[in-house]
Amino acid sequence: MAEYSSILLENAVDSLSRLPGIGKKTALRLALHLLGEEATETEQLADSLLKMKRNIRLCERCYNISDTAVCSICSNPRRDENTLCVVADMRDVLAIERTASFNGLYHVLGGVISPIEGISPNDLKISQLVRRAQQEDIKEIILALPATIEGDTTNFYIYRQLSDFKGKISVISKGIAVGDALEYVDEVTLGRSIQNRTIFSQK
Amino acid sequence: MAEYSSILLENAVDSLSRLPGIGKKTALRLALHLLGEEATETEQLADSLLKMKRNIRLCERCYNISDTAVCSICSNPRRDENTLCVVADMRDVLAIERTASFNGLYHVLGGVISPIEGISPNDLKISQLVRRAQQEDIKEIILALPATIEGDTTNFYIYRQLSDFKGKISVISKGIAVGDALEYVDEVTLGRSIQNRTIFSQK
Repeated sequence: MAEYSSILLENAVDSLSRLPGIGKKTALRLALHLLGEEATETEQLADSLLKMKRNIRLCERCYNISDTAVCSICSNPRRDENTLCVVADMRDVLAIERTASFNGLYHVLGGVISPIEGISPNDLKISQLVRRAQQEDIKEIILALPATIEGDTTNFYIYRQLSDFKGKISVISKGIAVGDALEYVDEVTLGRSIQNRTIFSQK
Repeated sequence: MAEYSSILLENAVDSLSRLPGIGKKTALRLALHLLGEEATETEQLADSLLKMKRNIRLCERCYNISDTAVCSICSNPRRDENTLCVVADMRDVLAIERTASFNGLYHVLGGVISPIEGISPNDLKISQLVRRAQQEDIKEIILALPATIEGDTTNFYIYRQLSDFKGKISVISKGIAVGDALEYVDEVTLGRSIQNRTIFSQK
């Protein structure tokens, strides 16, 4: 006998529970929710997932996720083509876009160098970054990778690969978060934020 | 510009985040996971959800979810047809089946009476229960509804509706859980478990 008295339900629960962070119980709750809703709800979900999977691609310029050959950021004439922000993941593009404090273009590496996870420089879009640095009119490359050992390693690797690059290379600043009380900040971050202090007033 | 530089991704995230307990961030994580996996993964998920929604129905005897007109429990000749367990939800059927301590048939009400949520007796399969009590050869009806005010109300309502029923009507016992230390049990439950004590030894 099927665990759920329905093979159809069991199959749906199995597929849902293959998603990350969704266990059997949550999957069952989601399946029963869909059973209780209008059929259009399920059809729209299935349709949007299939359309996304079948038609989405990476922008051939910046490797961000895109519906078109070149993504909407790269093809926006109001963006500053002289500044390039290098990020690990498309989620980082979303995070930076939400700040509304960057108007340049992006370059999505697809991860950071990580010997433990078996991610080598060749698995990332680093050679493509070097080519863009040579071919495009870029004045500054901002490295906005995670503040981890892997991020630092990748920063350093990219810095070496870009040895011929004539423009500026910068990294985003590390320090205490806006709103942080000093007593709750970890020592490494607090130490860094003192080292990397900015001048407030000078006579 | 689309929030995610891709309308396709945005649509998928929108559909996923309409599921209960799935926020925008989780939905994005799920969508990106599917983008990273083989296409068969997404196709299988979409297909199993559509097949479930289109083909599943309620057993016409017990109103449990079923792939066939009569569910696999009701049509199993080895189940005891003289005992009926009344539950609120199909999830409760799963929970009781997992205990392997009940071999009778079920009757799934589809909820409990709840004036606050606007669920009246007519929204539940109570008249169908009364009909089964009249037409089938049932010797005992076990009420296994949640131990809430709504559950108790529904128990009482059913008890009154079944006034012509000649067999036994029982409710599942309430008391401390197996493994519970007494000091952590709430007073109402502990009080009930003393009132409803069972005889251990008698001279």
